[in-house]
Amino acid sequence: MRILVHGSAGRMGQELIKIIENGYRNSTLAGGVGRNINEFESEADCIIDFSNHESTGNLVAYAVNKKLPLVVATTGHNVEELQIIADAATQIPVFMAANMSLGIALLIELARKTVTMMPDAEIEIVERHHNRKLDAPSGTALLLADEIKDVRNDLVYNLGRRGHKKREKNEIGIHAIRMGNIVGDHEIIVGTDSQTITLRHEAHSRALFAEGAVAAAEFLIKQDAGMYTMKDMLG
Amino acid sequence: MRILVHGSAGRMGQELIKIIENGYRNSTLAGGVGRNINEFESEADCIIDFSNHESTGNLVAYAVNKKLPLVVATTGHNVEELQIIADAATQIPVFMAANMSLGIALLIELARKTVTMMPDAEIEIVERHHNRKLDAPSGTALLLADEIKDVRNDLVYNLGRRGHKKREKNEIGIHAIRMGNIVGDHEIIVGTDSQTITLRHEAHSRALFAEGAVAAAEFLIKQDAGMYTMKDMLG
Amino acid sequence: MRILVHGSAGRMGQELIKIIENGYRNSTLAGGVGRNINEFESEADCIIDFSNHESTGNLVAYAVNKKLPLVVATTGHNVEELQIIADAATQIPVFMAANMSLGIALLIELARKTVTMMPDAEIEIVERHHNRKLDAPSGTALLLADEIKDVRNDLVYNLGRRGHKKREKNEIGIHAIRMGNIVGDHEIIVGTDSQTITLRHEAHSRALFAEGAVAAAEFLIKQDAGMYTMKDMLG
Amino acid sequence: MRILVHGSAGRMGQELIKIIENGYRNSTLAGGVGRNINEFESEADCIIDFSNHESTGNLVAYAVNKKLPLVVATTGHNVEELQIIADAATQIPVFMAANMSLGIALLIELARKTVTMMPDAEIEIVERHHNRKLDAPSGTALLLADEIKDVRNDLVYNLGRRGHKKREKNEIGIHAIRMGNIVGDHEIIVGTDSQTITLRHEAHSRALFAEGAVAAAEFLIKQDAGMYTMKDMLG
Repeated sequence: MRILVHGSAGRMGQELIKIIENGYRNSTLAGGVGRNINEFESEADCIIDFSNHESTGNLVAYAVNKKLPLVVATTGHNVEELQIIADAATQIPVFMAANMSLGIALLIELARKTVTMMPDAEIEIVERHHNRKLDAPSGTALLLADEIKDVRNDLVYNLGRRGHKKREKNEIGIHAIRMGNIVGDHEIIVGTDSQTITLRHEAHSRALFAEGAVAAAEFLIKQDAGMYTMKDMLG
Repeated sequence: MRILVHGSAGRMGQELIKIIENGYRNSTLAGGVGRNINEFESEADCIIDFSNHESTGNLVAYAVNKKLPLVVATTGHNVEELQIIADAATQIPVFMAANMSLGIALLIELARKTVTMMPDAEIEIVERHHNRKLDAPSGTALLLADEIKDVRNDLVYNLGRRGHKKREKNEIGIHAIRMGNIVGDHEIIVGTDSQTITLRHEAHSRALFAEGAVAAAEFLIKQDAGMYTMKDMLG
Repeated sequence: MRILVHGSAGRMGQELIKIIENGYRNSTLAGGVGRNINEFESEADCIIDFSNHESTGNLVAYAVNKKLPLVVATTGHNVEELQIIADAATQIPVFMAANMSLGIALLIELARKTVTMMPDAEIEIVERHHNRKLDAPSGTALLLADEIKDVRNDLVYNLGRRGHKKREKNEIGIHAIRMGNIVGDHEIIVGTDSQTITLRHEAHSRALFAEGAVAAAEFLIKQDAGMYTMKDMLG
Repeated sequence: MRILVHGSAGRMGQELIKIIENGYRNSTLAGGVGRNINEFESEADCIIDFSNHESTGNLVAYAVNKKLPLVVATTGHNVEELQIIADAATQIPVFMAANMSLGIALLIELARKTVTMMPDAEIEIVERHHNRKLDAPSGTALLLADEIKDVRNDLVYNLGRRGHKKREKNEIGIHAIRMGNIVGDHEIIVGTDSQTITLRHEAHSRALFAEGAVAAAEFLIKQDAGMYTMKDMLG
């Protein structure tokens, strides 16, 4: 699979090029471009976009014209840009995700499955991040809780349990540990009196976002025109 | 759901009656019988068998006659007994599993999913059991490894890694911790340089086998005639 | 070491007799008494008291008269009872602890040592208890924090971190997980950017309090008259 | 405390300079030299040596002449070089350690304390390292086991438990997990039927060796002439 990297000069573009050059998932580098994708004339099987949402117009026009599947790994698009992407998806396969981490997407699927199969369990989430992080709990911890609540509607969140009160059966306790240089660590504990299932995702480096984009490309080139997300990829 | 407990005097039968009387998954106790199931005349929605495989003939004849779904939670059946059960499954729904732990069945599904989605990851299994256990690693750890190998055929097992040799990419390292009174603890670690997913099941008490049987009954009463396993239940 | 159990009919007294009869730390049972210790006429090397603080007068008079070391494993003493015990300690060795768990006392010592040797580290405490526990965090978690603060005075506690604010260098974050049937689990995480030390104590059964009392007795019979605590024993 | 870095151009010398420049433990950089320490003329409070054992003669002569405490963080010295260092220790304080990790030295002390206080416990060691490591178990895991055996002589090692045999009471099970890019992770589990103490050290970066050397310097400048090790520092 020959990948064309859009936004090749940025931090994530560089990470992406590095893992492609190491042959991650048998990918090869078709080329890397900054803003002038129109000037790229070699062949490619897929575009991965790690540039900036402001380049959406040019990028999408090129992809549609060349009939190339497009992985959009940028965020922050405005309404017009989102419409441009949606229109393109009628002609080419497009993959879009707020978070390119395959591991977190997988963790969500595992958690939904676990909570569905253990309907009487109690649930706690423990997340760990570096000491510079401002929000507690993390956005990802809240996303995990939302996904779990989506399969068990009665749940309510207890952020940082504290006080003199018995645990309610339908609480999700959410705990935010802050320490050192931790990239990101999310643990979901699903337990009853007789057994506990623990699901944990630890991020070690930002390379995982580049890897998630390549995995998305690998999935996307086998699809028809349409809009795809992490959930489609996890099947 | 009214459950008829076959083998009600045994250890697991007693566990089962206890959780039904506590209303586990909205179950109620239709009754409990030892060997003389023929004498049971009240109504029930499902039979759970925690007796002994030698009672298979009587038990199955009764279930077929009454058109009652049957959860077989005993093990050790010989060929004739297995044939009797298979024949019954053409007329009633039958659930059969070597291990009634819903949690372990779930762990298997989660592991298969995780390994499929992270094809380049390295895998290690750590299991912990009490100090009286004879076999290392546990049968369940080997079962987990087999299920993982089923989705990634290249894997080979390294039981108790030791020596002077670099890890092969395709190893599953399997480690057996023995200590105190641990009921059963299985952890599957699936990792790359950039991220790690850890899946862990901890058993706290034998009640979990009774709970698994009730969950199976809940599933079974909605099915047509046929033979079902944990995998069907986890869907 | 022949142990005389005072309060032998109670729950903890029964636990104590059980482990002595199993030969825990080479102890043997001198005998067990309820309230009438005066009637006990055999020989013993030490008394362990798991009765009720209201029996203090009789108990202490007997111990002093027989010159027997005394482990006081009851709590709730009033001022007069405490004075009686203190007076006795001028004539016999007396051991007294609010919490007979040797493991928690050990955890405290380990934590003090660790924080002393890693003065620039960040500290978080995670405790796990069953879902019937009312207070969050647990009294033991707060005790651990107090002991840590005793060696690093600048620390302040953050109970259940939550909100939009960077971690302060001198916080101890304290997190209370509530789930199932967990007896008691306390984890102290001491970390910097380059390394982390984690100290964890898990209680599996109440037998640990009886064991702590026997370990105290073993320590006490080698001491002169005086008042001793867990810290003396850990030396 | 003004530190003179010997071997300033090497990898560890560079790490050391970086943390001193960040003011680790209130240290300041007196200067950095390669092999020509004789030419260094500014003032310093302590020398840290991260060069090569072949420079020992020059280095020690300079330290003795200037009456400067010396932290030797190199390894591989031959008999003559060791004698030179031992002679110097009659005139100046010298610190020497095979492993400059303060955390591992601390872990050893914690483990010795724990095993001493829990004489009837079972012990297991789990270590995790990157997939390029050749030896299993790690040298550090064996060092930990040796230190534990030093306080409980009856222990025997079981490297990579495997087979059909009950755990002996006096085994230390040692388990080697290999995965991804793990810098180094050592966990000591000390447990009975009633409670478990777990001690874990995780290394996140090589900076910890430079930090250990600065901690040693801070300790050393308060000492009289003599030879000191990690154990002296941990008191």
